[in-house]
Amino acid sequence: MNAPAAEIGVDALQAALGELFAPWVQALSLRAESAARGRVRLHLPVTPALVRAGGVLCGQAMMAAADTAMVLALMTHFGAFRPCTTVQLSTSFLRPLAGQDAWVDAVVLRAGKTLAFGEIELIGARDGRSACRASTTYALL
Amino acid sequence: MNAPAAEIGVDALQAALGELFAPWVQALSLRAESAARGRVRLHLPVTPALVRAGGVLCGQAMMAAADTAMVLALMTHFGAFRPCTTVQLSTSFLRPLAGQDAWVDAVVLRAGKTLAFGEIELIGARDGRSACRASTTYALL
Amino acid sequence: MNAPAAEIGVDALQAALGELFAPWVQALSLRAESAARGRVRLHLPVTPALVRAGGVLCGQAMMAAADTAMVLALMTHFGAFRPCTTVQLSTSFLRPLAGQDAWVDAVVLRAGKTLAFGEIELIGARDGRSACRASTTYALL
Amino acid sequence: MNAPAAEIGVDALQAALGELFAPWVQALSLRAESAARGRVRLHLPVTPALVRAGGVLCGQAMMAAADTAMVLALMTHFGAFRPCTTVQLSTSFLRPLAGQDAWVDAVVLRAGKTLAFGEIELIGARDGRSACRASTTYALL
Repeated sequence: MNAPAAEIGVDALQAALGELFAPWVQALSLRAESAARGRVRLHLPVTPALVRAGGVLCGQAMMAAADTAMVLALMTHFGAFRPCTTVQLSTSFLRPLAGQDAWVDAVVLRAGKTLAFGEIELIGARDGRSACRASTTYALL
Repeated sequence: MNAPAAEIGVDALQAALGELFAPWVQALSLRAESAARGRVRLHLPVTPALVRAGGVLCGQAMMAAADTAMVLALMTHFGAFRPCTTVQLSTSFLRPLAGQDAWVDAVVLRAGKTLAFGEIELIGARDGRSACRASTTYALL
Repeated sequence: MNAPAAEIGVDALQAALGELFAPWVQALSLRAESAARGRVRLHLPVTPALVRAGGVLCGQAMMAAADTAMVLALMTHFGAFRPCTTVQLSTSFLRPLAGQDAWVDAVVLRAGKTLAFGEIELIGARDGRSACRASTTYALL
Repeated sequence: MNAPAAEIGVDALQAALGELFAPWVQALSLRAESAARGRVRLHLPVTPALVRAGGVLCGQAMMAAADTAMVLALMTHFGAFRPCTTVQLSTSFLRPLAGQDAWVDAVVLRAGKTLAFGEIELIGARDGRSACRASTTYALL
């Protein structure tokens, strides 16, 4: 039987953000915004620390936010944190993001016994446009 | 005519690390170790700030180091920094890396007028084993 | 000004399938099912020629159908065939597809002056489940 | 204990090409050229059937050859065919290939209990230039 979706809410995700991830990843200051089974939305504040030459959000932060959001989406899918490791992550950078924060939406496409698939999108919080899309495979340990 | 490879050495790369990248990326403390035309090796110190639950180097830092190294490899290819943007980056995580620093080797596979292709490998500095391999496409602006 | 979406319908796409692609790709017998600006749906008949050991649709045909569908989706976006070349295509194989035909849905995410981004999904025609998802980058020539 | 590399030679690979793959993939007429443990080289004849508008080898055939070569490389790694399925395949198309056949080189980067990683390169048989590089993840069943 599957775990009920209600078990993992934004508070549990926010707590996980402070426990599971490396301090350097925590420095992104991601905030859990909403959660449903197999889906999460995080908020990424685009502070000067994340902006590269050219005045845009650096791609490194986009990829890091994407990977992090998927770990949380898997938590909501399984109803608890389950040890896992990223196997593959492919990111396409559609357009630069500047002068606004970002939403990071992650969705679990499929989770089997040993593998899980998901997709992540980064969206400008003001203009609603897609800045970056990633697809990923996780190994469940 | 192509720029001579000798123009860009480790000092120029180290300076670029402090200028082109977001402060959050600079916090990785990457160090330019060697350079040749179209090739760079960076050193990534695996400090506690980069270690996630499980005691291993977080994948987010691997992807960030890979993307950063490719920007520098393109500098050595062109003989100068050329504005560019990452279009796509695909990363495979082969094995965890723990208890050692990492080498980040980037090589330009092909650079045309508008697109450049490259590959990056992260290797354990002590055991010499490949932890992560990435392939990437850049748009030259 | 952008070309009106109405210019390219399923008949034009079907004609393109017979002209632009290699005979070996034409042997997939893809059929244009529907079209809108930046979107196409193709039908892929899962004949014995496409089935591998294990009784499932071979992944090679999934990738080939995905790449082909995106060329047609770009036609609907631009209102005409525009010379282009695939730069990158990343495919995730979510579950096997057997005993049914497939829909191949392609959508253009963004098309700029020199690059276009898109995504493709293969869906079982009977069970409606996603078998494969791909993301891709094209260079516009 | 690992199987000795000598068990799988080009004859066994050639036989596998005729047994494991879909007839449509067999129509590529791939030929096993050489084999070592975890490594194979196939020959891809670039016949008119594989050439698209523009006179170049179609990308669909490159991806199909890459996926096929990796299945054979895994055979040489394990010393026997082991049921597996492609999880992810990312392909970068570096330059067009025309007027010559292609070598398809596949190498197993790592094979664990449930996952295997590999890379494939397509090279012009006459000019020796890299046309396409792919990285892939397989699930071992």
